[in-house]
Amino acid sequence: MKLDVKQCCEELRNMEDIAILCHRNPDGDTLGAGFALHYILAQLGKRSRVLCHDVIPAQYSYLLLDYKEEDFEPKAVVAVDIADEQLFGKNLEEYCGKVDLCIDHHGSNKLYAKDWIVWEDAAATCEVMEEICNGFPEVKLTKIIADCIYTGISTDTGCFRYSNTTEKTHAAAGRMFLAGCDFVMINRAMFEVKSFSRIAIEREVLNTIEFHFDKRCALGYITKDMLTKTGAIEAELEGVAAMPREIEGVEIGLTLRQRDNGYKISVRTGEEVDASEICAKLGGGGHRCAAGCFVEGDLEKAKSVILGVVGEVIEKENCQ
Amino acid sequence: MKLDVKQCCEELRNMEDIAILCHRNPDGDTLGAGFALHYILAQLGKRSRVLCHDVIPAQYSYLLLDYKEEDFEPKAVVAVDIADEQLFGKNLEEYCGKVDLCIDHHGSNKLYAKDWIVWEDAAATCEVMEEICNGFPEVKLTKIIADCIYTGISTDTGCFRYSNTTEKTHAAAGRMFLAGCDFVMINRAMFEVKSFSRIAIEREVLNTIEFHFDKRCALGYITKDMLTKTGAIEAELEGVAAMPREIEGVEIGLTLRQRDNGYKISVRTGEEVDASEICAKLGGGGHRCAAGCFVEGDLEKAKSVILGVVGEVIEKENCQ
Repeated sequence: MKLDVKQCCEELRNMEDIAILCHRNPDGDTLGAGFALHYILAQLGKRSRVLCHDVIPAQYSYLLLDYKEEDFEPKAVVAVDIADEQLFGKNLEEYCGKVDLCIDHHGSNKLYAKDWIVWEDAAATCEVMEEICNGFPEVKLTKIIADCIYTGISTDTGCFRYSNTTEKTHAAAGRMFLAGCDFVMINRAMFEVKSFSRIAIEREVLNTIEFHFDKRCALGYITKDMLTKTGAIEAELEGVAAMPREIEGVEIGLTLRQRDNGYKISVRTGEEVDASEICAKLGGGGHRCAAGCFVEGDLEKAKSVILGVVGEVIEKENCQ
Repeated sequence: MKLDVKQCCEELRNMEDIAILCHRNPDGDTLGAGFALHYILAQLGKRSRVLCHDVIPAQYSYLLLDYKEEDFEPKAVVAVDIADEQLFGKNLEEYCGKVDLCIDHHGSNKLYAKDWIVWEDAAATCEVMEEICNGFPEVKLTKIIADCIYTGISTDTGCFRYSNTTEKTHAAAGRMFLAGCDFVMINRAMFEVKSFSRIAIEREVLNTIEFHFDKRCALGYITKDMLTKTGAIEAELEGVAAMPREIEGVEIGLTLRQRDNGYKISVRTGEEVDASEICAKLGGGGHRCAAGCFVEGDLEKAKSVILGVVGEVIEKENCQ
């Protein structure tokens, strides 16, 4: 059943010994919402435990500052920021079909829980969590809760840069300042700090960048050898794929990543060109500004195929 | 005389044919405030002209979308975001001692104008401008004014990351959303787009990075040859100086820039180490987290001198 904030708070009040599920490959929003809920429940005198398929990455350690894991058998289950039970990972077997309450902001949420509060217009699940926190008059917005909520809001909006950011997002973030949230440290941990291997792979990719179509298109690539040499892992490559598009005047950024029998290609574009149209021509897909496809063969073949398609699309737009 | 918002609006109401001065090497805050004021004055039926020592950089062109330069002899002068008349540049001779009103947020403002509204606690002059705009009941917060004000707030806070950001900053930014400000485009223009030469110099600097003191310290350098090779200009080097400190685990980032007879050294630190203490030992200075100094001699000498001092400071902290 769909709940409003008041009903959601009422349901949480009636729970005891709560398991809080975060999604696998956890990000700042699922962890921020999960730990915020833990600290809120603690103020209500309730025990809860945050569960995740993965080890919590070190950069989020400040979320756990006041967290003590207690030993109890869960009697209630809450999922935060999880659109689909498949994202439970190793917790799937134990908790599939057993979630009492889901708190989320994904429009794609499968409504697998008994009850749910899913706000599509919220930039982050932590925006929902902030209103839930407000819904308990006796719960104080402590610094640690503010740090948790700010973390989710900031990470899910790319520090207020993504188009999901709204006036309400800024208002919620502003309220976290009143509780003394350490936004400088949080944003440094989320956005500025780069691992040695990330720095190394960025350097490698910069060295591969070439320009096409009057510098309207920039292309870079990542080979398996480059990953071996730098020690970079998959999770570090997300930002790297955005690099070609960040160059002045570039409308189409292409990043080619070597796979066993070919290259996976990330296409990033601005308003002018449709990335999904480019990728659709090669059997791929995605969004207008970010899409992907795959081309079999070696690097030279992959380059020439994708550049051929980009050329066609640019040509077509020129004729319009 | 110090003015409040009401008095400031009253004074602007009494002006006609206004010169609006921005500071040299203009940034988003001086330009955002200057053009916001122009559009506010236009709604009040007044003519105004934005003046700056430098050509307005192309990335700010969206601020000028509704701007038409009219021919008139200024009868009143307003300075925005200018702490000191020396920052007038080529406009100094004509306007020195003639500023009627200064709108600013620098604590170091020399109070050179006849009247002033200087809010030290504001993250940006545009935060002050937003309240001035609100002070005119008949002025509508249009999209272009919102774009101007958001630009100043976002640039001066590093997109809400710097420690000058407050709850009021977020509230003001949020209000710009209600007028449809194009924050996605603005933040891309301010923070994501890099020039070819900036990309090239980043690549060069990444190639120079070396680690010291158990990787607690990272050092990179920029030689004159590297500038010639890449075509990078001074204004593009600001972000580059921050790069060594952005590496995971690095507490002290050092960037050495070649000068005629030695190296200018930028020191960036986290909470643990005091950058100004390091630089003071070499006759330089600055803030706790960002400071600078100069070492005569060649690269090897500059490296060994600065690393010697960093070693001393780390050693001392270890003993405490």
